[in-house]
Amino acid sequence: MPVITVDGPKLTREQKSKLVKAITKVASEIIQLPESSIIVLIEERERDNVGVGGILLSDKD
Amino acid sequence: MPVITVDGPKLTREQKSKLVKAITKVASEIIQLPESSIIVLIEERERDNVGVGGILLSDKD
Amino acid sequence: MPVITVDGPKLTREQKSKLVKAITKVASEIIQLPESSIIVLIEERERDNVGVGGILLSDKD
Amino acid sequence: MPVITVDGPKLTREQKSKLVKAITKVASEIIQLPESSIIVLIEERERDNVGVGGILLSDKD
Amino acid sequence: MPVITVDGPKLTREQKSKLVKAITKVASEIIQLPESSIIVLIEERERDNVGVGGILLSDKD
Amino acid sequence: MPVITVDGPKLTREQKSKLVKAITKVASEIIQLPESSIIVLIEERERDNVGVGGILLSDKD
Repeated sequence: MPVITVDGPKLTREQKSKLVKAITKVASEIIQLPESSIIVLIEERERDNVGVGGILLSDKD
Repeated sequence: MPVITVDGPKLTREQKSKLVKAITKVASEIIQLPESSIIVLIEERERDNVGVGGILLSDKD
Repeated sequence: MPVITVDGPKLTREQKSKLVKAITKVASEIIQLPESSIIVLIEERERDNVGVGGILLSDKD
Repeated sequence: MPVITVDGPKLTREQKSKLVKAITKVASEIIQLPESSIIVLIEERERDNVGVGGILLSDKD
Repeated sequence: MPVITVDGPKLTREQKSKLVKAITKVASEIIQLPESSIIVLIEERERDNVGVGGILLSDKD
Repeated sequence: MPVITVDGPKLTREQKSKLVKAITKVASEIIQLPESSIIVLIEERERDNVGVGGILLSDKD
């Protein structure tokens, strides 16, 4: 059942595959639940849609 | 006020219309709040962005 | 994989059981995925933690 | 650390910039944490993907 | 329809009331939607349940 | 900016500390962003509030 959401920048297909694998592995070991029960959702958010300290990331580029 | 988010696969316009209607109806009946107060948000997530058991859904296709 | 989150008021155990069952059923039928693949997460939010139109729900009681 | 997510309609770049700035300012003042610690995430949701009262917003247009 | 979620520290009732009012006001003005359509959800997260830079906030106290 | 949310079962303080550290490490390496920019939010959800396949986890105990 654990649902892990990664809200971050645009990723390559390879990065996504590695990220899902690695996060599932550590979560399974630490939470002590089978990998098969873990869902990872990736949210790729444009820099226009993220503000840190009151400024859009894209305005910091 | 209930906000119901459906994070799932790509859907047709017709499926979305049916899904919103059906989920709002059952939620209204069970939670006992008027349908007008229920918001349904649909998140269509690419198979590249979903991992189950450490593997991207798109890698299982 | 569909993950459906219901962010709403406090519910009884019976309501939760009914809600999970009913939402899973309609989602499975409309999205055409097996019920076994559908996860429903219930978030019970205090009226102090919900604002509609700029006013806390608990301030409207 | 506060993470503020705005799930709403499509916005112009200018609106996003103003929104991030204004929300970060009021949140910082009221929560009494530095602006630098506040993250704002903007989710632009199509009217096809929002249901209010059981009807898609796009079906109300 | 805009749903704004504030995921942050524990707040007093007064802070919540101010936060909901202020965020709804600026969002309504910038997004140009009526205040009545804006929902604010407050998520009060324990410092044990937040990690920044790999360390729990409560481990930084 | 990456915000990673872990929605899962009740955890001990030690598990949380390990989980935040491990997830931040792998995410930083794969996404190639500094650990300091990564936020992990832990959501401990009661078994009464999770449904899998239409049945509450607590009804499966």
